[in-house]
Amino acid sequence: MASPERITVDSNLLERMILELAQDGAYGETGVWRTVYSPEWVAATDRYAAWCAQAGLDVRRDAVGNVWGRLEGTDGGQAVVSGSHLDSQRPGGRYDGALGAIAALVAIRTLSERFGTPRRSLEALALCEEEGSRFPSASFWGSRAITGAIAPGDPDATIGYDGETIADAMGAVGLDPARIPEAARDDIETFVELHIEQGPILEQAGLPVGVVDAITGIRHYVVTLTGEANHAGAFPMDRRRDPMAGAAEIISGVIATAHRMGRPAVTTVGRMEVEPNGPAIVPGKVTFTVDARHPDPAARQLLYARHEALMREVAARRDLTIDWHLTFDLDPVICDPDVVGLLEAAASGQGVPTLTMASGAVHDTQRMEAVSRVAMIFVRSRDGRSHTPEEFSSLVDCVAGIEVLAAALQRLAY
Amino acid sequence: MASPERITVDSNLLERMILELAQDGAYGETGVWRTVYSPEWVAATDRYAAWCAQAGLDVRRDAVGNVWGRLEGTDGGQAVVSGSHLDSQRPGGRYDGALGAIAALVAIRTLSERFGTPRRSLEALALCEEEGSRFPSASFWGSRAITGAIAPGDPDATIGYDGETIADAMGAVGLDPARIPEAARDDIETFVELHIEQGPILEQAGLPVGVVDAITGIRHYVVTLTGEANHAGAFPMDRRRDPMAGAAEIISGVIATAHRMGRPAVTTVGRMEVEPNGPAIVPGKVTFTVDARHPDPAARQLLYARHEALMREVAARRDLTIDWHLTFDLDPVICDPDVVGLLEAAASGQGVPTLTMASGAVHDTQRMEAVSRVAMIFVRSRDGRSHTPEEFSSLVDCVAGIEVLAAALQRLAY
Repeated sequence: MASPERITVDSNLLERMILELAQDGAYGETGVWRTVYSPEWVAATDRYAAWCAQAGLDVRRDAVGNVWGRLEGTDGGQAVVSGSHLDSQRPGGRYDGALGAIAALVAIRTLSERFGTPRRSLEALALCEEEGSRFPSASFWGSRAITGAIAPGDPDATIGYDGETIADAMGAVGLDPARIPEAARDDIETFVELHIEQGPILEQAGLPVGVVDAITGIRHYVVTLTGEANHAGAFPMDRRRDPMAGAAEIISGVIATAHRMGRPAVTTVGRMEVEPNGPAIVPGKVTFTVDARHPDPAARQLLYARHEALMREVAARRDLTIDWHLTFDLDPVICDPDVVGLLEAAASGQGVPTLTMASGAVHDTQRMEAVSRVAMIFVRSRDGRSHTPEEFSSLVDCVAGIEVLAAALQRLAY
Repeated sequence: MASPERITVDSNLLERMILELAQDGAYGETGVWRTVYSPEWVAATDRYAAWCAQAGLDVRRDAVGNVWGRLEGTDGGQAVVSGSHLDSQRPGGRYDGALGAIAALVAIRTLSERFGTPRRSLEALALCEEEGSRFPSASFWGSRAITGAIAPGDPDATIGYDGETIADAMGAVGLDPARIPEAARDDIETFVELHIEQGPILEQAGLPVGVVDAITGIRHYVVTLTGEANHAGAFPMDRRRDPMAGAAEIISGVIATAHRMGRPAVTTVGRMEVEPNGPAIVPGKVTFTVDARHPDPAARQLLYARHEALMREVAARRDLTIDWHLTFDLDPVICDPDVVGLLEAAASGQGVPTLTMASGAVHDTQRMEAVSRVAMIFVRSRDGRSHTPEEFSSLVDCVAGIEVLAAALQRLAY
């Protein structure tokens, strides 16, 4: 390892890349609508590949469309990889994912220009799909391919909001779903993802950059409460089996449970459907989602146990039928302590004050952990906003985050 | 007034009429889908008019399509009217409305056959529209026309679920909206509506028939809570402005308030919409309805004051913006004590045990009160169900209710 040196990146280059990449799928003033395998996504991958080539990296696209830019090291062996995803929410902003892909490229280009050929190979990675915003069950498609977690039947079984399969969408951009297994990698030593925080914790702490030591475990429940639809006027309160009353009590309860458990526990009810959804009819059925997350495995199980006990108790007391199923259930990832320590040391060496924190959002890093040591760098989000065109991180903060990334990659690869 | 005599109605005739009328708009095994001015509705009004003529009544259709069958009295002057509505929910059952229209006809036919010409004129009335199931803002269209409560601009401003105006729908069945004022009546002395209870109170009490001494006051709030949409994972609980959390607390609160106030207070949240309605996004906006009813004017105001105080308090404490507007606000109706007493006496004379009770559902009677003395007769509903094809009242109970109606009409008109 070379001795640490203070690294600076070209903020003009960075700003230009952020603005140019945001043109692919530009939506309104500051938004981006760039779903996987769309023309806007193709344009973004072409742009990213061209930038990699300009930086002197060897460019390769794998079987699902991830773009890799490699700076070959002298020692061969396993590579050090950094990157994030190019796809967006519908619409999202300019920073979610895109900043991490750009950061990897800018960092490796900076290191290459200043320190020349590394000992260990460095790779910048633009992942093809993280959000699941076109194919809801395709979240982490790019990192799943790299970690061999796409089953042979998945491409034909993964249906988009428009009814198309992801297999067809791949074919339309020249990718062969049968070749997906070729995207798997077993030669990655360390993966570091830079990403915007998407929450307000760094802003509250007055810090530009965070080091992520754990990524939340997450579970999505879809809960259905069934009672009896009745006349809203003629049916007395004391005789009702009202699933809306039960849902309200459960929603209040699960939110209060996470709140009282304290940070970083979070529980969200973001979606509800009511049948028959008439103003003068006691509903017969209410369906809602419960998204519950905690990065600590034991605390996560406690959170779920409390939620499930509450749901059962309320349903039984109110004589409602309750059913739930899980649409998403991902274990937390504890980041590699050595990589976390190295990121902290790199930040310290750069003079960038940081907070070591858990990620409440899920990330490709969660998947990459199956084949590599992992950790993450967070960049402060204004007002904690994300998944909206209003998301914003200042150029100064982005530069600080990328300089920490570059310093860490230098320690890992030189 | 002739001295009270025990009156019996022809249960075979009644059963045949219930089953035959249910053929107009038959839906599945036992349901009815018969919206105002539809072909099914036209068929039902034709059938009803033919039955009136067969019973020797003078048949007249007014400017909105209400069907009147009149048995002229010897004394002239104001009439005694009974009836209910022919339109249904989508789908509803065979009894809601239809039973009351049939009851009036069967009762007057029975009286005419047994007692001949009355002193005071008797009229059977099939009202054209009560449910608002085709034109949501046209509830009570028939009784509003009779009471002069349709403004000149209303027919063109009343839009159906299919985008059509009620003016066009009237034109399609040969009715001229400009003539609506001609439907107004100022010569009705007493209006008695027989209707199924639509709730479980008579069933619980083990009684076939109820006498209604008050009809609920009702208000529909549409409540919008606005907070801030945020990432469900990265945004901590203690920093959220989550309108779903606020809605759940308000819904639990208003339901508990009505429950604790006791019968006959009722509050229902039957409709909710969430934006953006994604499982992993803290909602930015939640809109829901609050239907709150009480037949006592002072208790009703107390119920509304408690609901509004709670809504304001929760919104303020959770830093949410709250707005509400009223889509429906109808004062309670206290039925005429003399008519209520006469119905109770008629039931007693018939040997039919009754309960005097408030109606938690709204009815055309509420409108008719503007031009007439009013009261209602309820017939027991199985399981308290209504607004569904499963609604059912036994033939024995229907006969008992109609015999009470006939006995009352005899006291009023002979």
